[in-house]
Amino acid sequence: MSASENQQQTNGNGACAKGYMNPAPTPRAEWITKRREEAVRSGDDNMSQMHFARKGLITEEMAYVAKVEKVTAEFIRDEVAIGRMILPANINHPELLPMAIGVGSLCKINANIGNSAMVSNVDEELRKLHTAVHFGADTVMDLSTGGDIPMIRQQILRHSQVPIGTVPLYEALARVKKLEDLNIDLYLEVIEEQAQQGVDYFTIHAGVLIQYIPLVAKRVTGIVSRGGAILAQWMTSHHKQNFLYENFDRITKVMAKYDVCYSLGDGLRPGSLADASDEAQFAELKTLGELTRSAWKSDVQVMIEGPGHIPIDQIKMQVDKEIELCDGAPFYVLGPLVTDIAPGYDHITSAIGAAMIGWHGAAMLCYVTPKEHLGLPNEKDVKDGMIAYKIAAHAADVARHRPGARDRDDALSQARYTFDWDKQFALSLDPETARAMHDETLPDDYYKETAFCSMCGPKFCSMNWSSKVDKFNEKEHGLTKPDLTQIVNEQMALRS
Amino acid sequence: MSASENQQQTNGNGACAKGYMNPAPTPRAEWITKRREEAVRSGDDNMSQMHFARKGLITEEMAYVAKVEKVTAEFIRDEVAIGRMILPANINHPELLPMAIGVGSLCKINANIGNSAMVSNVDEELRKLHTAVHFGADTVMDLSTGGDIPMIRQQILRHSQVPIGTVPLYEALARVKKLEDLNIDLYLEVIEEQAQQGVDYFTIHAGVLIQYIPLVAKRVTGIVSRGGAILAQWMTSHHKQNFLYENFDRITKVMAKYDVCYSLGDGLRPGSLADASDEAQFAELKTLGELTRSAWKSDVQVMIEGPGHIPIDQIKMQVDKEIELCDGAPFYVLGPLVTDIAPGYDHITSAIGAAMIGWHGAAMLCYVTPKEHLGLPNEKDVKDGMIAYKIAAHAADVARHRPGARDRDDALSQARYTFDWDKQFALSLDPETARAMHDETLPDDYYKETAFCSMCGPKFCSMNWSSKVDKFNEKEHGLTKPDLTQIVNEQMALRS
Repeated sequence: MSASENQQQTNGNGACAKGYMNPAPTPRAEWITKRREEAVRSGDDNMSQMHFARKGLITEEMAYVAKVEKVTAEFIRDEVAIGRMILPANINHPELLPMAIGVGSLCKINANIGNSAMVSNVDEELRKLHTAVHFGADTVMDLSTGGDIPMIRQQILRHSQVPIGTVPLYEALARVKKLEDLNIDLYLEVIEEQAQQGVDYFTIHAGVLIQYIPLVAKRVTGIVSRGGAILAQWMTSHHKQNFLYENFDRITKVMAKYDVCYSLGDGLRPGSLADASDEAQFAELKTLGELTRSAWKSDVQVMIEGPGHIPIDQIKMQVDKEIELCDGAPFYVLGPLVTDIAPGYDHITSAIGAAMIGWHGAAMLCYVTPKEHLGLPNEKDVKDGMIAYKIAAHAADVARHRPGARDRDDALSQARYTFDWDKQFALSLDPETARAMHDETLPDDYYKETAFCSMCGPKFCSMNWSSKVDKFNEKEHGLTKPDLTQIVNEQMALRS
Repeated sequence: MSASENQQQTNGNGACAKGYMNPAPTPRAEWITKRREEAVRSGDDNMSQMHFARKGLITEEMAYVAKVEKVTAEFIRDEVAIGRMILPANINHPELLPMAIGVGSLCKINANIGNSAMVSNVDEELRKLHTAVHFGADTVMDLSTGGDIPMIRQQILRHSQVPIGTVPLYEALARVKKLEDLNIDLYLEVIEEQAQQGVDYFTIHAGVLIQYIPLVAKRVTGIVSRGGAILAQWMTSHHKQNFLYENFDRITKVMAKYDVCYSLGDGLRPGSLADASDEAQFAELKTLGELTRSAWKSDVQVMIEGPGHIPIDQIKMQVDKEIELCDGAPFYVLGPLVTDIAPGYDHITSAIGAAMIGWHGAAMLCYVTPKEHLGLPNEKDVKDGMIAYKIAAHAADVARHRPGARDRDDALSQARYTFDWDKQFALSLDPETARAMHDETLPDDYYKETAFCSMCGPKFCSMNWSSKVDKFNEKEHGLTKPDLTQIVNEQMALRS
């Protein structure tokens, strides 16, 4: 497909910048070359950021992340060394702009894309990638299960400046005739190939053990993790232990060589409120803790995946348990959804849980789109999911009192109070939507300078009256309003 | 307008049932007549539910509410007597189906409708009323500020089976030439007329005192409550105390006569995260506590309005403060929005805060629509706001462990796990949207009976595999799944 064709496709779609199909630049290329040469010299082929951190080294990736997160490089190094933070950065992903996942950094968001055997194609997946990143995705998972999976992944990797995660079991299953044919050799082949391509983290459901299978019998929704269900079916067919658990060390060797992070999958996560925080879930979590310590012995980076569907009153407990059982490895959570009754709106049911769990210490939130439980998300669903999760992650960062986290809120509030409509739109998460909603009733440019909107009209605008009260306070009491000009200007500059 | 014209207007709009413009039936008419006769006999014209509760009586309204809430009528009476629960039920609102607001009952939702001088008309307001109630609004506030306000309100009241609230100050302001002309006599005239019409609760900003005005000088967004800003401007112009505070006893007399509940307005609520939980907010809240005790002396029912914009980490403290300063009067909160950066999506930013504050003990959540801060909500915005708040209130009820609160979740989860797509849609908050999203990729009826959707396809459907694991558990371990047939049937019956 030619560049002009690509551009035609994106015409009229405000979310897609021009040229989104051009391969991304490769800012890490030089760092990686240098590191490879050093590995040849020393004979130490462990490329993991944790390995370097534990040797006391500050990598270029750590230095980059430190700047973005406004902390010292030493802090990043120390957090990575103890395993409380990960820097997913496969040495074969030179396009990556490094980022960190951990309680010591801003709360991150993952967006799932990828096709199924039923729908989608590579162009659409690239559009979804672009839309996700445009609206603030910090990592993207390619969950493709149909079509030419390696080709789609290759395209995604070469176009992505954010870390890419996968669930290698999907490709393994796609390669066999029937589920029972899955085996460790095939699996190792798949992860070696994916690691070679540059995938930054793998979801690996090595904690679903055969002895936990009876624990799901009482559940309303059984096993809802695809990886978990596939492995459970494999184990019950063969009457054998999970082959990912049995061969964990062999997998770890591949992870170390390319610096792929473990995202230890929660194959037994609850799929309904009824199943939340049950024995099966926490039995697996304990095993994930074991596996974490095992991976750390080889300096391989680890994060832990979490629920799912959890009622509000159990959310804090989920984080506490994970920190306790997995020694503080970063917690990467799906939602959680705080009710099961709103299919079509699960970006909202889960954004509630996500904001809360982010506040309590989850390091990354996996978004849920409105299409969850109903179908494969399209580009619009990706956008809606992203906005809901950007809200959740940002609200969590503000609640955690991260330095400067509230600046954008303050800048937008100032623009709002001073009726600077254009700045209010520009500072918002989705300027086009904000502007369109305002213009629905008051489209004329004239109304971009008026001290009211259609909600109240001029006689009933509180902020209009309030500005008169400000004048009174200044005249009578000598009290002046805070000057937020600098914050507004800084925040506007970030968005220009 | 003729009935057939009305029906034409609603054709094609699934949310509007036919005949929504027919006046509502009057189930309370007999109870009220009896009560009036008794008042003439006894000479006691205090019609408040609290007055009857304190005399030890169980009114028909209390008995009705007890059934709906699945508690004893004695419990309702006792909660009303101590002021921890209110039953908004103006004796001139015979169309009302009684409901309760209090921490001892299910978490309620209010939907704001009403026009502004800029847009809207009575037909559209009736459509919004119908849409709000259809999607679960427990009360509706008519915030009209333009056009023929009394006529719009009359239409809304005569069509509403849920309690209607207003902010009488709006009509008072609409009647004067300039704000400074507002006065207590006009105000008393307005509330007498509105009470006479049947309004069930009034927002009254009697706690904004002149000595609190300097406290807002440091704020980023000053005074964002319309009522608060109007009164502040009045006080600063006249150098006089708030005339609603000064004449509170006179207002209380009207409230008692018609049994209108106070909804003590938070005129100094924060309008941005920067202003949350500040001195101005809590100074006013303390005054609202004073006024609560004053109203209770006349057995007048009271709830307390709350914020606004509050970061996640301050939400619990808001409820604790309110309970402490206002002796446990029901807390009726707007949102709160947990970030300021998402105009166009404030139904989501605020649903996060609403779910949390509902869990912590707020009795009623005032919805926020996507149009908040940008324009007057239309019917679609009303629906979107309602769904988000239904999610929030329900999640709060589940988290509070209210008996049976999780039944609908369990029933829907069971339908989901058994691939009963039609039941899954029927049990959801918005069946049409859920069905449409599913059908977007798999429209054929055939796919309503298949054990997968387009998200994963048949080979990758976790629940499909999981059902095989269930069979294993049954065969190998003799473990069977719980039988939820009864819950599913009960929940389906509620929706047929």
